[in-house]
Amino acid sequence: MNKTDLTIKFGNRMRELRKAKGLSQEDFADSCEFDRTYISGIERGTRNPTLKALEILANALDVSIESLFKGL
Amino acid sequence: MNKTDLTIKFGNRMRELRKAKGLSQEDFADSCEFDRTYISGIERGTRNPTLKALEILANALDVSIESLFKGL
Repeated sequence: MNKTDLTIKFGNRMRELRKAKGLSQEDFADSCEFDRTYISGIERGTRNPTLKALEILANALDVSIESLFKGL
Repeated sequence: MNKTDLTIKFGNRMRELRKAKGLSQEDFADSCEFDRTYISGIERGTRNPTLKALEILANALDVSIESLFKGL
C-alpha cells in the first residue's frame, strides 16, 4: 500500500503509544492477536487498518480510539 | 460485514455529523467521491471503513479524524 501523510503520522503515533506502554512490537502484536509484521507495517505507514482493527489496537493500548488520533 | 457495537456507534456518529452539516447522504457521498450506498452502509454499521476512508469522511465534514470518534 502507498504511504500517505496520514498513514505515516498514524504509524508514528502508534509507535509512541506502544513504547509508552513499554511493549515490544512482538508483545503488542500478541496482545492484539495480529502478526508482528502487521504492527510493523502500521508503524511504518504502509498499512491501512480498518475501523475494527483500530478498535483492537486501542483496546490493547488501553486507550480510546479517539486518542489514537490525538494531534493528527 | 457483521455489525458490531463500534460500527453501529460510529455509524450513528457519522449520521449526526452529516446532518449537522445539512447534507443529504447523496450530497455527502458526492463530496467524498464515494457511492451513496457506501455512506448508507457506514451509517447503518454494516461497513468497516479503513484509515484512508476515515480521512476522506473527516475532510468532507471539515472535522478532524479524532472528532469522528468523540464520545465513542
